[in-house]
Amino acid sequence: MIIKMKKDAEWSVIEKIMDSLKKKGLGVHDINGEEYRIIGVIGDTSGLDMGSIEGLPGVETVTRIQEPFKKANRVLKSEDTVIDVKGIKIGGGNFTIMSGPCSVESRDQIIEVAEGVKAAGSQILRGGAFKPRTSPYAFQGLELEGLDLLKEARKITGMPIVTEIMSPSLVDKFVEDVDIIQVGARNMQNFDLLKALGKTQTPVLLKRGMSATIEEWIMSAEYIMSEGNPNVILCERGIRTFEKYTRNTLDLSAVLAVKKLTHLPVIVDPSHATGKRWMVKNLAMAAAAVGADGLMIEVHNDPENALCDGAQSLTPAGFAEVMVDVKKIAELVDKRI
Amino acid sequence: MIIKMKKDAEWSVIEKIMDSLKKKGLGVHDINGEEYRIIGVIGDTSGLDMGSIEGLPGVETVTRIQEPFKKANRVLKSEDTVIDVKGIKIGGGNFTIMSGPCSVESRDQIIEVAEGVKAAGSQILRGGAFKPRTSPYAFQGLELEGLDLLKEARKITGMPIVTEIMSPSLVDKFVEDVDIIQVGARNMQNFDLLKALGKTQTPVLLKRGMSATIEEWIMSAEYIMSEGNPNVILCERGIRTFEKYTRNTLDLSAVLAVKKLTHLPVIVDPSHATGKRWMVKNLAMAAAAVGADGLMIEVHNDPENALCDGAQSLTPAGFAEVMVDVKKIAELVDKRI
Amino acid sequence: MIIKMKKDAEWSVIEKIMDSLKKKGLGVHDINGEEYRIIGVIGDTSGLDMGSIEGLPGVETVTRIQEPFKKANRVLKSEDTVIDVKGIKIGGGNFTIMSGPCSVESRDQIIEVAEGVKAAGSQILRGGAFKPRTSPYAFQGLELEGLDLLKEARKITGMPIVTEIMSPSLVDKFVEDVDIIQVGARNMQNFDLLKALGKTQTPVLLKRGMSATIEEWIMSAEYIMSEGNPNVILCERGIRTFEKYTRNTLDLSAVLAVKKLTHLPVIVDPSHATGKRWMVKNLAMAAAAVGADGLMIEVHNDPENALCDGAQSLTPAGFAEVMVDVKKIAELVDKRI
Amino acid sequence: MIIKMKKDAEWSVIEKIMDSLKKKGLGVHDINGEEYRIIGVIGDTSGLDMGSIEGLPGVETVTRIQEPFKKANRVLKSEDTVIDVKGIKIGGGNFTIMSGPCSVESRDQIIEVAEGVKAAGSQILRGGAFKPRTSPYAFQGLELEGLDLLKEARKITGMPIVTEIMSPSLVDKFVEDVDIIQVGARNMQNFDLLKALGKTQTPVLLKRGMSATIEEWIMSAEYIMSEGNPNVILCERGIRTFEKYTRNTLDLSAVLAVKKLTHLPVIVDPSHATGKRWMVKNLAMAAAAVGADGLMIEVHNDPENALCDGAQSLTPAGFAEVMVDVKKIAELVDKRI
Repeated sequence: MIIKMKKDAEWSVIEKIMDSLKKKGLGVHDINGEEYRIIGVIGDTSGLDMGSIEGLPGVETVTRIQEPFKKANRVLKSEDTVIDVKGIKIGGGNFTIMSGPCSVESRDQIIEVAEGVKAAGSQILRGGAFKPRTSPYAFQGLELEGLDLLKEARKITGMPIVTEIMSPSLVDKFVEDVDIIQVGARNMQNFDLLKALGKTQTPVLLKRGMSATIEEWIMSAEYIMSEGNPNVILCERGIRTFEKYTRNTLDLSAVLAVKKLTHLPVIVDPSHATGKRWMVKNLAMAAAAVGADGLMIEVHNDPENALCDGAQSLTPAGFAEVMVDVKKIAELVDKRI
Repeated sequence: MIIKMKKDAEWSVIEKIMDSLKKKGLGVHDINGEEYRIIGVIGDTSGLDMGSIEGLPGVETVTRIQEPFKKANRVLKSEDTVIDVKGIKIGGGNFTIMSGPCSVESRDQIIEVAEGVKAAGSQILRGGAFKPRTSPYAFQGLELEGLDLLKEARKITGMPIVTEIMSPSLVDKFVEDVDIIQVGARNMQNFDLLKALGKTQTPVLLKRGMSATIEEWIMSAEYIMSEGNPNVILCERGIRTFEKYTRNTLDLSAVLAVKKLTHLPVIVDPSHATGKRWMVKNLAMAAAAVGADGLMIEVHNDPENALCDGAQSLTPAGFAEVMVDVKKIAELVDKRI
Repeated sequence: MIIKMKKDAEWSVIEKIMDSLKKKGLGVHDINGEEYRIIGVIGDTSGLDMGSIEGLPGVETVTRIQEPFKKANRVLKSEDTVIDVKGIKIGGGNFTIMSGPCSVESRDQIIEVAEGVKAAGSQILRGGAFKPRTSPYAFQGLELEGLDLLKEARKITGMPIVTEIMSPSLVDKFVEDVDIIQVGARNMQNFDLLKALGKTQTPVLLKRGMSATIEEWIMSAEYIMSEGNPNVILCERGIRTFEKYTRNTLDLSAVLAVKKLTHLPVIVDPSHATGKRWMVKNLAMAAAAVGADGLMIEVHNDPENALCDGAQSLTPAGFAEVMVDVKKIAELVDKRI
Repeated sequence: MIIKMKKDAEWSVIEKIMDSLKKKGLGVHDINGEEYRIIGVIGDTSGLDMGSIEGLPGVETVTRIQEPFKKANRVLKSEDTVIDVKGIKIGGGNFTIMSGPCSVESRDQIIEVAEGVKAAGSQILRGGAFKPRTSPYAFQGLELEGLDLLKEARKITGMPIVTEIMSPSLVDKFVEDVDIIQVGARNMQNFDLLKALGKTQTPVLLKRGMSATIEEWIMSAEYIMSEGNPNVILCERGIRTFEKYTRNTLDLSAVLAVKKLTHLPVIVDPSHATGKRWMVKNLAMAAAAVGADGLMIEVHNDPENALCDGAQSLTPAGFAEVMVDVKKIAELVDKRI
C-alpha cells in the first residue's frame, strides 16, 4: 500500500500514521520527495480500510499495490482449479458447454430442449426456475415447479443441471436438487447469499455483475471461498457501457485477466452479453479462441413464444450449428471438448 | 411500442405478429415506408417481453414508448407522495436530513454522533448494523448488536432511525426495530428482498444501483409498490463511470428526472457519491439547489479511527457547518427545513 | 511513481531499472516485501512513459503518484487565475454568464438573442459559426458569415463573444475576431489545435471531452499553457455514461476536483449536459451552489425553429427567469455577479 | 422517426407538427393511444434535427427508427467493400495484417521492425510519425522525418505503409507519401479532418473514438464517404468503460454490428485495446474468430527502450508466434491470409 502525504503534512502527523501501521505488524518505509512524501507499506494489508486511511489528516491518496484476494489468487495456488460435476470436468484444459432455455416453461419444453442440446454436444443443462426480472409485471419463473422439471430433465438425459438462486433461504433446497448453483449478475454482491453458498460444497457459477470490476468479481468469489467452498466457476456475461447496440458489452479481455489473477475456471455467456441471437455463434467462437473454459448458451425449442429473452435464444438446430464451429476452435487451442 | 420490421419481411409474417398483438387487446397500426415498415402498438404493453418480440422472425428492433411503471408514475398520480416517519415528513416541499456513521461501532460512538447531529439539525439518524463490504476480510458490522445500539440512540435522542437490510429473512425484525429500512445500491435488484419489503408498510429508502438506469431504479421501487407498500424514498448516491477521481459520479440530473417521472421523494447522498469528505458540503448545497427532498450524510465522531469509510465522514462539527449553508439554500428554494 | 515488480524478478533486472532511473536524475527507493517488491521513484517523472516502464521485464504494474501537470497545478500557483475579457473577469470570486444560441442562423436571430440575454444579465455572447455535427447531412453552421454576424452583435450590444474553433488553420482569424475561443468536447484532444492556441494570448474555453478523465482534461489545458498561453477557462458539459435519459451526465464533482487540482476558472454548461430545456434552471442553480465560476447557457429566440439543439434552448424570457434564481444562489455563496 | 406527444398536447399543436413534416415531403401517421399519442414519420429523416423536434411544444420524446447513414449502409449496398492497397486486398473475405511500432524512432529501428514483421507475415507496415500524446511533455513523434523513414522502410520491404494524421493541413502531404491514412481515436470526430480526407481517394483507416457509439463511428465514416472517398476501413480499438484493468475494453461485438450495418471492412487493434503485451495473442485470435477482416498489432524491436507504449509492443519474434495461431484461426473461418 502506498500512502501519498500532503506536501505540507507535519512530521508528527506522518510519524503517528507510521506508528499505527507498525503496530499492526506492517513494514513501513518513508520516502521523501521534493514535492510530496510517500509512505510505502509492506505486509498483509487486506484487512485495512483504505477509505479510513485516506481520511487521516495529512493523507492525500492511498493506493493498494497488493491484490486483496487470497484464496482465489493464482500467486498462492498456481495450478488451475478443476471442478468435477458428476464426472464432467470444468477448468484445467477442458471446454464445457452449458445450455438450455432462459426459463423453464413446461415439461415438454424443458425436455425437448434438453434432448436437443444433449444431442448437439451440450454437457450441462441450464434453465431458470427463479427469474430476476426488471419488471414486477413480467413472468417470474415457475419457481419450485421449475426445479422439479429440471430434475426430471436431468433424469431423462443424464445431464447435470445449473440454475439460478435468488435468496439465501433456498440454499438447502438448491444444494439438494441442483448440481451447480448460479448466482446472477444482479446478486453478485448479495453477500448474505455468497456467505450461505460458501458454507456448502456445491459448485457455484458466479456471474460478473453488470458494473463489477474484475477485482470486485474476484472478491465475490473470495466471499464464497473464504467460507470454505473452493468450487467457484466464474462467468463473464458482458458489462454495462455507454454502447446500447448490444444489451451489454462482452469483455473478453476479462477472461484473460481472471485466468492470470486467479486459478478458477471462467466461462462466457454470449447470449446475455449481446441479447442478439445472430451474434451468439461468432462470439462463442471468439470466447473459445481467447481461452475461456466453456460457454453458457441460451437455447429454446420455440424462441418466438419464449416467455423471456426470445431474441437471444437459439433453436436446438441453430445451437447444433454453433457447436460445430466452436468445437473446431476449442480443439485448435488444445482444449478437451 | 414500436416494432421496426426488416425491409424484406413478408406480409404473412407481419400479419401474424399483428394478429398476436391484437389478441392481447392491444391496438395495432401498420405504417409502411419505402425502406422499412413499422408497427405501432397502443395499449398497456408493460407485461410484454420486448426481448421475445425482438426475436420474432422479420423483426429488426423494438422500442418501448410507454414507461413500464404504473404505481410510481406521476402521470397516474400527479401530487407528490409525502411519507410520514413519526411526524417527520419526507417529500412534498420538505427538506429532510438523515445523518450518522457509516457503521455503528460502539454505544459511545453512536450516541455521541447521534447527539451531535441532532444538535446540528439532523432529523433522522442513520447507521449501518449489517454492512455490505467488497472484501470478506473487512469489518462486516455489529449486526444485531448494532440494531440494539441504534434503538438506544433513538430512545435517547428521539430521532427515528434508518439502517440497511441485506437479507429477506430479517424483514420482520427490521419492521419491528427500524423506522426506515434502507436497501443499498448492491441490493437494488435483489428482487426477493424488494418483494418482502413490499409486503410491509415500513418506509423503504431505495438507493440507486451503481449502474442502474433511472428506469431500472424506478422499476425496483415499482416492485415494492406493486406488493402494496407505497412508502418508497429514492436515494441518488452516484453512478459508476469511467471517472475514478471520485468513488462514483453524482448524477444530480437524475433527481430532476425522477421527480418528473414519479411522485416519490428523492434524496441525495453526497458522502458515498464522492468518497471525499471535502466535497460533501458543496455537493450537499448543490443537491438542495437542484431540488432534492433531503440529504443523507455520513458523520463520525472520530473519522480517523472509523472502521469504514473514514475518508468520507464529517465530524459533528464539520456537519454543523454544512448544515448552516444547506439550510440557506433549502430556504432559498422554498423548502421547509 | 511506484513500480511494483513481479515476485520472481531477479535482482539484476531490478538493479538495471533502478540504474536507468537514477541516470535520469530521479531518486529511487527499493522496498522489499514478502510477496512483492516495489521501487519508489521520486522527482519529476512527467517526461517518463509509464507504458514503456510497464513493459520492462520483471515489472508488474506502474502507478503514477505525482500529477503530470505543472503550469495548471495549484500546488505550484495557489491563487486563482482570473481572466480579463474586455473588463469582464472570469475566476477568482466572479460568476460569469455566457449565453446565446447553439448556432448563429441569421442577423435578426443573433441580434435579437444578444439583446435579450444582455437585458437578462448575460455578460458574454456565445453562438456557433462552425458547428461540429455528428451527421454530415446536418446544418454545419454559417461559418465565416456567422463570425461576421457575431461581430455585429458584439458591436451593437457591447458583449464580448465566444465561439468554437474546429481547425488550426483558422486560429489567426479567430484571434482577430473573437474574444474567447472555444474548443469543443470533440476536439479536446486535437493536440495540433491546442498547440496552435497555446501560441496566442486569446482566452481559450476548453470543454471537457465526452469521456475525458479530469486528469486528461487538465493535461489538455496544460498543452495550451505549456506553449505560453495561460488564459484557459475549463467548462464541464457532462460526460458519457450508461444513463441515456439525459444526453450526458453532468459531473458537478468535477468542478470541485478541478478547483482543487488547478488554479483555473471552471464554468458549467447545463444545456449540453442534459439536452433538456426544463432541466437547465435547476442544474444552473446547482452549478452555482457547488462553486462554479460561471455558466454557459443556450438561448434561442425561436427554439421551435432552431437549426440545432432546439430541445435544450431557452427563450430569452425563460433565460431571464433562470437568471433571477441563479443570481440569488451566486450571491449566497459570495460570488460577484 | 417516432414522435411521442405529451398526453395533454392540443390538437392544433399536433396538427402544426404534422403539417410541417409533410411540407418536408415526409409521410406522417397519427396513432392515438389512451395514455399517449404518437406520430410516425416515414421517409428520409436524415436531415432532420432530432433535438429541435424534441424541443417543439407538446413533444415528449423523439426516437429515430431509420439509420442516419446512407453511403456506408449495407441496406443500400449489400456486397462487401474491398479496398485495394497496392495489390493487397482489405475486406471481402481477406484477412489483412498491419503491424509495426507505435512510433518511428530511427532508421535502424523502423527497418529492423519492418523486415521482422514482413518475415512473419505482415502485409502492411504501421508506424507513428505524428503522435497524439496526452501529455505535452511526452515524445511527440519524429513528424516529417518519421514519414521519410517510413517511406524508406516501404522501399526496402515493399510493404505499403499506414500512419496517423492529426491535422487537415497535412492531407496533401499524406496523400502523396502514404498508402493508408489513419485517423486516430481522439480525432474520430475532427470533422474538418474527415471532410478533407473525403476529398481524396486514399484509403482511410478510421479508428473508433474512445466513447463513440457504433452509430457515431459509422457517421464519421459517412463524413468521409459523403465527400466522395469510398475507401474507409474501420478499426475497433477498445472503448472506455469503468474497468481499468485493461487500458480500454475491446468490443468484439462491435465488429459483428458494423459488418451487419455497413459494407465496410473492419479490423481490430488488440494492442491499444488492452495496453498489455501478454493479452495481444489471445485477443488477436478472438478477433479472427469473431470475423474481423484483419488486425493492427504493435511490434517493436526493443520494447524495453521504446519511446512510447512499450508495455503493449511485441518483439518481432513474439509477433511471429502470434501470427502462427492467428493464421490457423483465420483459415478455419475461411479467410484468405
